[in-house]
Amino acid sequence: MTTLLKAQYSERGPVPQDVISAVPFERPTLAAGQALVAVLAAPINPSDVLMLTGQYGQLPPLPAVGGSEGVGRVVELGPETTGPAVGQTVLLPAGSGTWATHVVVPASRLIPLPNDADPKQLAMLTVNPPTASLLLSEFADLKAGDWIIQNGANSGVGSYVVQLAKLRGLKTVNLVRRESAVESVRAQGGDVVLVDGDDLAARVQAATGGAALKLGIDAVGGQATMRMAATLAESTSIVNYGALSGEPCIVTPRELIFRDVTLKGFWLARWFRVTPPAAQRALLTELAGRIAAGQLHTPIQAAYDVAQIKEAIAAAAAGERSGKILIVPTPGA
Amino acid sequence: MTTLLKAQYSERGPVPQDVISAVPFERPTLAAGQALVAVLAAPINPSDVLMLTGQYGQLPPLPAVGGSEGVGRVVELGPETTGPAVGQTVLLPAGSGTWATHVVVPASRLIPLPNDADPKQLAMLTVNPPTASLLLSEFADLKAGDWIIQNGANSGVGSYVVQLAKLRGLKTVNLVRRESAVESVRAQGGDVVLVDGDDLAARVQAATGGAALKLGIDAVGGQATMRMAATLAESTSIVNYGALSGEPCIVTPRELIFRDVTLKGFWLARWFRVTPPAAQRALLTELAGRIAAGQLHTPIQAAYDVAQIKEAIAAAAAGERSGKILIVPTPGA
Repeated sequence: MTTLLKAQYSERGPVPQDVISAVPFERPTLAAGQALVAVLAAPINPSDVLMLTGQYGQLPPLPAVGGSEGVGRVVELGPETTGPAVGQTVLLPAGSGTWATHVVVPASRLIPLPNDADPKQLAMLTVNPPTASLLLSEFADLKAGDWIIQNGANSGVGSYVVQLAKLRGLKTVNLVRRESAVESVRAQGGDVVLVDGDDLAARVQAATGGAALKLGIDAVGGQATMRMAATLAESTSIVNYGALSGEPCIVTPRELIFRDVTLKGFWLARWFRVTPPAAQRALLTELAGRIAAGQLHTPIQAAYDVAQIKEAIAAAAAGERSGKILIVPTPGA
Repeated sequence: MTTLLKAQYSERGPVPQDVISAVPFERPTLAAGQALVAVLAAPINPSDVLMLTGQYGQLPPLPAVGGSEGVGRVVELGPETTGPAVGQTVLLPAGSGTWATHVVVPASRLIPLPNDADPKQLAMLTVNPPTASLLLSEFADLKAGDWIIQNGANSGVGSYVVQLAKLRGLKTVNLVRRESAVESVRAQGGDVVLVDGDDLAARVQAATGGAALKLGIDAVGGQATMRMAATLAESTSIVNYGALSGEPCIVTPRELIFRDVTLKGFWLARWFRVTPPAAQRALLTELAGRIAAGQLHTPIQAAYDVAQIKEAIAAAAAGERSGKILIVPTPGA
């Protein structure tokens, strides 16, 4: 085994790539119950970047290793430890600091994954697919044929929303913020794709043939929330899970009072906190199966070694991307 | 019987007193099932003014008689009509056009009220007390000792919220928009009364000894909604029922996502539409009893005859008031 590396930060700051760097560490001696896992792939999510800048809702104590999700292969189990066999592909527990060549985690918290599926796609299993799945299941009683609307449709979550909605027979109106993003969302199966802006409600009505929209999924905030509210059917909800605009959500009393539109938030970290482990594992296993079967897939823009963490973070924090940025440690480490 | 008068409007416009005027009408001949009721008192609510300007969520066809609630005394029943006896004080059905000396309504929809209670207080039974009661009962599971927060606390609804909360053993944080309104809310029994503005969450924490606020009641919108959200305990709701600021509600994704605050709207008209008549009558009868017993009371600034409708509307639409404006037809008509 060559040099072990982890991407670590000891302070937070406005330029995320400035606070993090790759540092070597010694191969640890395992205690009972522990497993050493070689990371195969770990994505850089928007929430990870917000942890570096200090803008996220829960922040780990410092120093911390970045990366909240990923997959690896079991290298070693601690003494008298049962768990997935050495060589097994596994899902790392949420929040394990996955931007590293190796991590040490409790063996009991590893979830076995198919060995023959693409580890880069599986690496994105813990955060975005359950977010998309729960956004579709927890805020409206949707039936096949129902229409929903989402903005930020070309985001990681947005892409899974399109795919999961299609698998459930739902129709999607997808909003993006620039014309150049329309085609990729259409290619993933979005039924209607529009550039968000003026006259949105009228354009949505025209594009859907006057369909009643049963759920709004908002990743943007600001005026975008208000425009989305006006497109929805009466007595429905908007669920906000992001603030790509950097602005607070705005909804008129007219929508709230006269049209009974509700504005809620969704945070996957809370769901993991309040949901029994068996239910968490059931959802993740279901979604892993769909990824392995090729039913869920998200575009990847580039992969970087742990040693390239600064370039990787800079690429992830940049505005226009065509897909996810991943950390993929060089094999053989 | 002298001249019958009704306050009627045939168009809508930005200056509400300009579009409405008192017009005489003939004493009608009753059909079976109808009752002629002499109006004793009818309030001017903010929603009534919004119907004159066209800003309300549902607008009656024109021409229309203004006034959505009030009490009267039965003058005559139609042929073969059963209903409250002649002389009985009754609650007029919601939306009957109550700014008039007399109204004709279905006898079956009249709710008998105590003959010996103050008709001016009973006249305000249909709109504000059930709004206050339902704001307190439908959006949180509150127990005696729990704290809630409301803004617009010196409004008609706000005053009933204070009184009903007290009857249920709840503690209230009351926000007003000017120092001169603090004393009246305190006099009605508000536990904490603050002028809304900067550092609100810190001032609320200090005034309540760090209490967990379980419900927010928002009549204002705009930044006031955002300030209120920051005062609330996690996983609670703000219910908006008005827009005194004239601005849309604002809530940060931080409150929605990380603190699980939900923003909903409440509209009494919808509640009347979706709630079985027996449940409506039960709530109104309970609240009428509390008014008759003197447990619920709201300040009245002035009463005007139907002939003075323009002055009455101008007074109701003015900013600073010390109480409600009522239409009280001159007795003997």
